[in-house]
Amino acid sequence: MVNIRRLDAAQPDFRAQLDALLAWESVSDDKVNDIVREILHNVRTRGDAAVLEYTARFDQLDVQSAEQLEIPQERLQMTLRTIDPKLREALEFAADRIKAYHEHQVEKSWNYEEEDGTILGQKITPLDRVGLYVPGGKAAYPSSVLMNAIPAKVAGVEELIMVVPTPHGEVNDMVLAAAAIAGVDRVFTIGGAQAVAALAYGTETIPQVDKIVGPGNIFVATAKRYVYGTVGIDMIAGPSEILVVCDGKTNPDWIAMDLFSQAEHDEDAQAILVTPDVAFADQVAASIEKLLPTMPRRDIIQKALEARGALITVRDLDEAVEMINIIAPEHLELSVEAPEVLLPDIRHAGAIFMGRYTSEALGDYCAGPNHVLPTSRTARFSSPLGVYDFVKRSSIIMVSEEGAQTLGEVAAILADGEGLPAHAQSARYRLKD
Amino acid sequence: MVNIRRLDAAQPDFRAQLDALLAWESVSDDKVNDIVREILHNVRTRGDAAVLEYTARFDQLDVQSAEQLEIPQERLQMTLRTIDPKLREALEFAADRIKAYHEHQVEKSWNYEEEDGTILGQKITPLDRVGLYVPGGKAAYPSSVLMNAIPAKVAGVEELIMVVPTPHGEVNDMVLAAAAIAGVDRVFTIGGAQAVAALAYGTETIPQVDKIVGPGNIFVATAKRYVYGTVGIDMIAGPSEILVVCDGKTNPDWIAMDLFSQAEHDEDAQAILVTPDVAFADQVAASIEKLLPTMPRRDIIQKALEARGALITVRDLDEAVEMINIIAPEHLELSVEAPEVLLPDIRHAGAIFMGRYTSEALGDYCAGPNHVLPTSRTARFSSPLGVYDFVKRSSIIMVSEEGAQTLGEVAAILADGEGLPAHAQSARYRLKD
Repeated sequence: MVNIRRLDAAQPDFRAQLDALLAWESVSDDKVNDIVREILHNVRTRGDAAVLEYTARFDQLDVQSAEQLEIPQERLQMTLRTIDPKLREALEFAADRIKAYHEHQVEKSWNYEEEDGTILGQKITPLDRVGLYVPGGKAAYPSSVLMNAIPAKVAGVEELIMVVPTPHGEVNDMVLAAAAIAGVDRVFTIGGAQAVAALAYGTETIPQVDKIVGPGNIFVATAKRYVYGTVGIDMIAGPSEILVVCDGKTNPDWIAMDLFSQAEHDEDAQAILVTPDVAFADQVAASIEKLLPTMPRRDIIQKALEARGALITVRDLDEAVEMINIIAPEHLELSVEAPEVLLPDIRHAGAIFMGRYTSEALGDYCAGPNHVLPTSRTARFSSPLGVYDFVKRSSIIMVSEEGAQTLGEVAAILADGEGLPAHAQSARYRLKD
Repeated sequence: MVNIRRLDAAQPDFRAQLDALLAWESVSDDKVNDIVREILHNVRTRGDAAVLEYTARFDQLDVQSAEQLEIPQERLQMTLRTIDPKLREALEFAADRIKAYHEHQVEKSWNYEEEDGTILGQKITPLDRVGLYVPGGKAAYPSSVLMNAIPAKVAGVEELIMVVPTPHGEVNDMVLAAAAIAGVDRVFTIGGAQAVAALAYGTETIPQVDKIVGPGNIFVATAKRYVYGTVGIDMIAGPSEILVVCDGKTNPDWIAMDLFSQAEHDEDAQAILVTPDVAFADQVAASIEKLLPTMPRRDIIQKALEARGALITVRDLDEAVEMINIIAPEHLELSVEAPEVLLPDIRHAGAIFMGRYTSEALGDYCAGPNHVLPTSRTARFSSPLGVYDFVKRSSIIMVSEEGAQTLGEVAAILADGEGLPAHAQSARYRLKD
């Protein structure tokens, strides 16, 4: 018996219940902070030697020199030739589609000229070097390698450095194959806070990068938070979430399985169904009961559904849209007849899966859009990982002699108003007498 | 006698000297962290009551109720009518140009349809509500209000909430006038970590926002770092910097004044000249000596130039470009004959001021581009504040029944490869038998 929460938006205390359901705060406790700070300090000051020590201690990987931590490019290419061809084909198919989608995100530099000859613009430049963190062990997903690496390469990043821990020397071949397909330039078998430190500060062997992306455990996330500013970082992700909105006309087994596909990630994952059809919510609950025993990861699924899942009934699809905008879900599935009708009113969602055939799993692997998405209601203010995360902009200002006359007068007035006389004077110097 | 550092790129230890010159690390000490955490906790749990207490304690502003902390819109409009008309005109001129430039940054949603009817796209949505922090006292700059507020309004942000401390009730009229011009929706006279907390968590009176932007002291910066994740934040800025590259043919007084205009901000500001012309460096040094005594803010300028300034000589302009890409300056002035020749090789700079007539002060106030720029070498991976900071993207995926067949097969193979059977099953459900 799966004890999944049933909520009704018409209940007087509904909003409080919903807020409690959504509440999530990831806290790095003092112990984690202390450990991470020490690791960062040691790698920063002692370089390779510290990286080798931590890798021996945490990953039981004993090598003599830091050079041995690198997996040569030939090994990546060889792995690509030796994995199951069906998997290789699937990875290549996914990579092609991810590339095609992300190419639509490429922005161009622009500028415009004003009447007096002044030119204003914006120059787009890819980052020089990016670090990609890939977790080891059970959470090593080749699809994540594709999703993080391909937008960087589409952006034009010249050097992409991947780090992946290999506890006891165990290497994940699918991850290496994905790295080869995505065009990763160098791979080092290091992980944890020490890998983040090595990428952020550089060591004798591991080059310093400009930005670090990719998921990791609490030590990795904490280290990323600390090095932010020295390098750029991507979002710090919370547990994965799905919100399925259904009009009650999709096969309830499909919807149950879509909820499972989120819940199977881990016990903190969140899977919520919102429907205006109470009878349909009952059908989905029945499908959950029926299908759960068939699932290899049923224990995780059940724990996640009971801890953070919910079946919510609403008045109508308009109220469902209100719910979407409150929840601001990472993944939103609109399993309804005419999803395009709802779309204009949806303000907050990482990715929107429209129509009964668009299961979230398609987007996770191969539809094309990125699967790195804002979690924990951060879709209110942040975006999927994209090409825009691997470029930066520079403002271009080229004021003509004539332009300097009008702009200079105004700048001087405002600078005087703010009490910054050198600013005023530097503008006035350019005025004709 | 101004003791400004002279460096030569040909010296063997030059790179070490340059690194030492650029080194900057802003550290919130334990005491600041403890104070900020306590303020955040109190405002989060006790709302208005805590905000009123802190405002009375830190700003000596005693009001009876939180409603009195709001400056009504009529007051903003009245201030706009009563300030010096010359200043008002200058602010409006600047606002128009800032708006015109930022309108070029507006991005549109897009989508494309594949042969099998599958639709992929990206939806752009402005943030709902943004908080704008404006420092009180001497660092209250109306130009900052324009630069932070206008891109948000161009992006389509519906509600823009400004907070500005008014120690002892002292209000800065130019700041209020700028808020009126920029279209700020509501203004509260609160500041410090308590204002950041109020915006991040919301109180009975102050609405919760989705993102907080704007400069502030170490308490404000530390508070922003803590609430990041609950809300979005902009960059945490270090001291302001300028790098002037000059071919030796600009009036040395102009260059000295451009360096001053950076150095006058505060004692940590950084002003560096790079030139291939040693004699010109001497001339600029002489101009500095000559002009410094005429500067009202000469004490600050001298301290900044001596602590963090430098005149650097290089072999040629190619080496100057190398220098630019190492320094990754916030402001880059190319005071050379043909700045457009250097531009393609410049990879890292917040804003590029091209030509002898483009003094940085023009960009600070009214050229149009934003003056909120990445400092401390973060131009390697981050961008000026822009319209893109006030929107977020959602991926759009609408897979046709036919598309679900091909994508479903591939997704199922990859999900199986990653050991995620519910993902595989949810894709397979959509396959025709």
